[in-house]
Amino acid sequence: MNHPTPPMRDSWFAPLSIDLLLKVLNVTIFHPFIAWLIPLCFRAEHMAYTAKPMMATSAWAVAVTLVWMGNMMSHKIAYGMHREVDLSEEVIVVTGGASGLGLLVAEVYGMRGATVAVLDKAELESNDARGITYYKCDITDKAQIARVAGEIEKDLGAVTVLINNAAEVVGKKLLDMDIEDVERSLSTNLLSHFYTIKQFLPGMLRNETGGTIVTVSSVIGQLGAAQLSDYAAAKAGVTALHKSLQAELKAFPEIKTILVTPGQLSTPLFYGVQSPSSFFAPVVEPVDVAKEIMAAIDMGLSDHIAMPLYARWIDWYNVLPVGIQGIARKLSGVDKGMQGFIGRKGSELSEKNGTLI
Amino acid sequence: MNHPTPPMRDSWFAPLSIDLLLKVLNVTIFHPFIAWLIPLCFRAEHMAYTAKPMMATSAWAVAVTLVWMGNMMSHKIAYGMHREVDLSEEVIVVTGGASGLGLLVAEVYGMRGATVAVLDKAELESNDARGITYYKCDITDKAQIARVAGEIEKDLGAVTVLINNAAEVVGKKLLDMDIEDVERSLSTNLLSHFYTIKQFLPGMLRNETGGTIVTVSSVIGQLGAAQLSDYAAAKAGVTALHKSLQAELKAFPEIKTILVTPGQLSTPLFYGVQSPSSFFAPVVEPVDVAKEIMAAIDMGLSDHIAMPLYARWIDWYNVLPVGIQGIARKLSGVDKGMQGFIGRKGSELSEKNGTLI
Repeated sequence: MNHPTPPMRDSWFAPLSIDLLLKVLNVTIFHPFIAWLIPLCFRAEHMAYTAKPMMATSAWAVAVTLVWMGNMMSHKIAYGMHREVDLSEEVIVVTGGASGLGLLVAEVYGMRGATVAVLDKAELESNDARGITYYKCDITDKAQIARVAGEIEKDLGAVTVLINNAAEVVGKKLLDMDIEDVERSLSTNLLSHFYTIKQFLPGMLRNETGGTIVTVSSVIGQLGAAQLSDYAAAKAGVTALHKSLQAELKAFPEIKTILVTPGQLSTPLFYGVQSPSSFFAPVVEPVDVAKEIMAAIDMGLSDHIAMPLYARWIDWYNVLPVGIQGIARKLSGVDKGMQGFIGRKGSELSEKNGTLI
Repeated sequence: MNHPTPPMRDSWFAPLSIDLLLKVLNVTIFHPFIAWLIPLCFRAEHMAYTAKPMMATSAWAVAVTLVWMGNMMSHKIAYGMHREVDLSEEVIVVTGGASGLGLLVAEVYGMRGATVAVLDKAELESNDARGITYYKCDITDKAQIARVAGEIEKDLGAVTVLINNAAEVVGKKLLDMDIEDVERSLSTNLLSHFYTIKQFLPGMLRNETGGTIVTVSSVIGQLGAAQLSDYAAAKAGVTALHKSLQAELKAFPEIKTILVTPGQLSTPLFYGVQSPSSFFAPVVEPVDVAKEIMAAIDMGLSDHIAMPLYARWIDWYNVLPVGIQGIARKLSGVDKGMQGFIGRKGSELSEKNGTLI
C-alpha cells in the first residue's frame, strides 16, 4: 500500500498552539486567585490603595473574578445541581469502546474501579483491559442492542452512564459515495444514539442517583465540510438530539447530559486528515478530551465540552455574514482537510504493511 | 374526535408582528433610494450642506447604502454568479408536493409554465393542478426514487431544479416514541435528501445551464426542542448536508444551493402547535416562504432563506452563555410549543369529522 504521508508534527514549535497559551493563561493571570495575588503583593510592599498599579491590578482581579462567577452561575442556571456519583456503583456503557477515545475512557474507568461495558463490532484493541467487559455489538442493529442490554443488566447491573461514542467516517464526496455507505454512516453516527438512549434512559430514570448521557458529536456538525456530508449531517443531528433531550429532561434533574464537540482527534478515525493550522486548530489528543469528559461525569454535571479552543467559539462562524464565512472557509482550509484522508481501514492496512508513521 | 382547539389568531392586533414592521422599514427608511430622497428634499428646499438635518440624513443614507452594498458583496463572494434560468426549460421536482408548502410551489410553477413533477406518497390535495405531473413515490425507498427518476426523465426531461421539501413530524417525547417512528422520521426528513441529491445532481452537472438544489430545513435544527428530537436531529442534519454540499460544489458554480430554515408554518404538518409569541415569532404563511424560494430559483441564485425574522438571527442563540440560553428557552416557550400538537393526521381526522377550525 502506498499512502501519501500523513501530516506530522515535526517542527520544534509544533506543540505550540493557541490552546497551550490559553491553558497557561487560565492558571495564571486569568485565574481569580492569581489575579488577586498581584494587588496583595503590592499591598505587602505598602503601596497606597490609590496608586495606579494598585488600582489597575485590583480592577483586573475584580474583572477576572466577575467573569469566573458569571460562568459558574450561567452553568448552574443552565444545568442545575450535580448528581451524586460513586464510581464503584456506576455501570458505564461505552459504544465504540474498542479503540480510540472510547477505549481510553473505558480503560481509565475500568482501572478506577467502575464497572465498564464496551460495545463494539470490532474486537478490543487492548488485551489487558482491567474492569472492562466486552460485548460484541453492531450498534446499527437495534435487536443486538436490546439483547446486549439484557446481558449487561444481568452481568453488571443497571446502566447509569451511557457514552455514545461510536463513529464512522466514509470520507468521500457525496457523488462518489455508495448510497449504502451513507445509510451505514447515518445509522452508526446518528440513529444508534436514538437506539441506545431509548434502551438505557428508562433504567436511569428508575435509578435513585440518576444517570449521565454523553453524546460525542463533532465540531464538523456546525460547519459542514467537503467529503464529510454524511458525517457532518449525522453529527449535527446528534447535537440537536442532545439539545432536544436536555429540554425533555428538564423535569428530571438527576439525569445529566454532556455534549462533546471536539475538533480533529489524533485517533485512527481521522488518520491522514490534514489539520488546517497547528496553531489555531491543533489536532487534539484523545487523552485531553477523555479527561474533560470524565471530570464532568465524576462531578455529576451536565456540560458542553469543546476542544480545541476554536471548537468552543465555532458558533460565532454561523453568525458571520455569508461572504466572510466563505472567506473564512477558504483561509481555514476546512474543505481541503479530507483530501489526504486514509481513515481507520487505511491505518490498519498501513500498520500491517509496517508503514504506519 | 375531540381535539383541543388549535391556536387561533383572533385579536385585532394579531397580524402585527416584528416581521411586518421590518417589512415596512425595509421599503422605507432602510431602503437606500428612500434614504437618499430625504437629503435631496432638504436640498430642494435650499438647505445648506452643513446644516445639521442635512448632515444627519446624508450620513444615514450613506450608512444604509453601505450596508446594502456590503450585503450584496457578501452574497456575491459567498455564492458566486447567478445561473441562467428559463422557466419554460426547467424541470422541477418537488418532494412532498401533495400538500402545504410543496404543493404551493408546484402549483405556482405549473401555472407559470415550468414543467413540474410532484413526488409524494399521498395523493395530490388539489384536483386542478395545471402543469403538474404527479408521481406516487415513498421517498424513504431509494428503489422507488430511482424508478420514478427514470419515468420523469422519459416523460418530462432532465431535472434542473430539485426541491427537497417532504417532511414528517412525529411530535412525541423520545421515550414515548416507537423506535420505528424514529427510523421513519429520520428516513423521511434526512436520508431522503441524500437519495434525491445523488439521483438528480449528476444530471444537473451534465446540463449546460446547471441546476438548483433547494433544501427545506427548519429553525428547529439549530435549536432542538422537546417532543421534536427526531425532527430537530434530521433538520440539523440536512442543514449540515447543505453546507457540505455547497463546499463540494465550489468547483461547479452553475449548480446553485438554497437553504430554507423557516420557523413554524401554518401548514397541516404543524397543526395544533402553539407559537410562543405572535409578535416576535409569528406563524409564517407558506405563501411568503414560497415567494422567497421561487424568487431565488428564478434569479438563479444560491441563498439562505430564513423566515420569520427570528429565524434569521437564531444562530446568535447558540453563541449566548448557556445560562442565558436556558432563560431564553424558558421565556420563549420553545419547549412547550408541541404540547398541543395534533399534526397532519389529526387535522385530517378533524376535517373528516367536520371540526376543522
